Amino acid sequence: MSKLTIALDIMGGDHGPPVTLPAAIKAIQQHAEFHFILCGKESAIAPYLQSLTTQQRERVTLEHCEQVVEMGESPTSALRTKKSSSMRRVIELVNEGVADACVSAGNTGALLTLAFYILKTLPGIDRPALISMMPTADHHKVFLLDLGANVNCTSETLFQYGVMGSVLAEQISGIENPRVALLNVGEEDIKGNAQVKHADQLFKQAAELNYIGYVEGDDIFTDNADVVVTDGFTGNVALKSSEGLAKLVISELRQQSQANLFTRMMAKIALPLLKSIYNRVNPDQYNGASLIGLRGIVVKSHGNASSDAFYYAIVEAMQEARIGVPEKIKNKIETVLLEQL
Amino acid sequence: MSKLTIALDIMGGDHGPPVTLPAAIKAIQQHAEFHFILCGKESAIAPYLQSLTTQQRERVTLEHCEQVVEMGESPTSALRTKKSSSMRRVIELVNEGVADACVSAGNTGALLTLAFYILKTLPGIDRPALISMMPTADHHKVFLLDLGANVNCTSETLFQYGVMGSVLAEQISGIENPRVALLNVGEEDIKGNAQVKHADQLFKQAAELNYIGYVEGDDIFTDNADVVVTDGFTGNVALKSSEGLAKLVISELRQQSQANLFTRMMAKIALPLLKSIYNRVNPDQYNGASLIGLRGIVVKSHGNASSDAFYYAIVEAMQEARIGVPEKIKNKIETVLLEQL
Repeated sequence: MSKLTIALDIMGGDHGPPVTLPAAIKAIQQHAEFHFILCGKESAIAPYLQSLTTQQRERVTLEHCEQVVEMGESPTSALRTKKSSSMRRVIELVNEGVADACVSAGNTGALLTLAFYILKTLPGIDRPALISMMPTADHHKVFLLDLGANVNCTSETLFQYGVMGSVLAEQISGIENPRVALLNVGEEDIKGNAQVKHADQLFKQAAELNYIGYVEGDDIFTDNADVVVTDGFTGNVALKSSEGLAKLVISELRQQSQANLFTRMMAKIALPLLKSIYNRVNPDQYNGASLIGLRGIVVKSHGNASSDAFYYAIVEAMQEARIGVPEKIKNKIETVLLEQL
Repeated sequence: MSKLTIALDIMGGDHGPPVTLPAAIKAIQQHAEFHFILCGKESAIAPYLQSLTTQQRERVTLEHCEQVVEMGESPTSALRTKKSSSMRRVIELVNEGVADACVSAGNTGALLTLAFYILKTLPGIDRPALISMMPTADHHKVFLLDLGANVNCTSETLFQYGVMGSVLAEQISGIENPRVALLNVGEEDIKGNAQVKHADQLFKQAAELNYIGYVEGDDIFTDNADVVVTDGFTGNVALKSSEGLAKLVISELRQQSQANLFTRMMAKIALPLLKSIYNRVNPDQYNGASLIGLRGIVVKSHGNASSDAFYYAIVEAMQEARIGVPEKIKNKIETVLLEQL
């Protein structure tokens, strides 16, 4: 069997090569079963490759890309004027079948637009979605989608998100018959807006899914569901506001701890613990988000990601490539749609 | 000048009289400048009044109400079948001009429906909103609305929310020229759904407001804005998901601290600090939310509120009554609308 190949956008993110390359080197060293294509400026990448053994070096292709999509750049500009960017190239490699998955920490809007434009959606899927795993109290993981790929969602799109989330929970977390829930402002049947109420009806008709009804915002962090479905506007706000609260807790602890010698000592002890919790409960910063519903695998690492976080995103891409996530989603949506005929 | 009067729904909330009455007694004892009308079952209320002095007792009216709106009851049922409920009575007292404000910890849906039906909205305001103050890092407060009164908001409604939020930030927090922001998924002009983009245009035309543009979810907990405006669906999810994350942090700290003797000691020291932070950063649990845009003052305390939280909601109602919030909103919306003619 030929090796699976992961294409990495080395230039993307707030920090670029100094953060992405150490993560890439670690992935190359630790995953001999994968081939890697590093896309970006050759002059930035080449020096790093010297730390690899000859055998490791054989599993790496360097593809020089002249252009870089900037963090603040508009999606339209990235699409029209950056035809030889590293971000575009990694997606093209997936589209050409040369790579099995790609990873970028670059500008989310540009990545979404390029991936949608180049890869297209799977049959039966109207729009791609950004999905990530959220932590819950008992080390269970909840898949939350959409995190911001589409701010306007029809009920049909929400339903398709449920199907896709269900596939990821089953394939990636190994959950049998994952519980799919719709995010709403209350658990009663009368609540919610028109799209959510209609999506609820669609889910109730799909015997192929384990739909459990509505959940509320706090359930994103409980084990009441395995998949929580919402539109990209609400999902993005839920993610960002939780992140904001996590930051507030840390900053508040820091501030309160300055009060006196005793609280300063207390804080010295509690802060490392709290930081490790923060890393765990702050999925936006730490975990990669996958762009799903497309004909290829695209994993988005946070723009401000550390090397550890970028490495985690590479691992995520390798896992999805091994599973063949797009094919699994294609099969599931076909089954669900056939059932409804 | 005659005393201002606050009507209290003693029966509302998960716990009812055992929680609401101690808070009411405390308010009566500490605020000699107010009169209080306690609505609910006479047999439940009367015993508590014995702890009052004769002078204090003179500032209290007990109004027996036969019915109670249950926590799980539908708004329609509360409206149609509970004509002598304590929740309905406190709103009627405000409508009749007998009370200057009312407080209830009862079922949110029923309270919203009854208040909207009985009090009606102010001229120029289409829909009422639930608003609350969110904590930020430097003990600044951000007013967030709508927290769930309307899941479907037009851009005009969002604009009116901005006007109302601005009045509260000015009158209650004493912020001159409060910064009003629209919640969005990104700060760039191209982002957001149609309602948000159109609301952005309306705000930009209103010279009477200090509109600062878009903010993201994490800004709810920073001091980048004084008022954050969003629809009731998104606002509710933002509030609840932050609450969920706060709970997760606490539970995670508890769990991790069980690891060994050292971490158990550390947790013993850190937990009280973290709990005090949790109370501060968990506005849903702790602060009252005001239902604004109506012709009278209605303050909603959390259903699961403690006596302290219910007392806080009473203080909030007293403050709004002193200021005459509905009148202030009416004046502001008139000025803004006139300016646009």
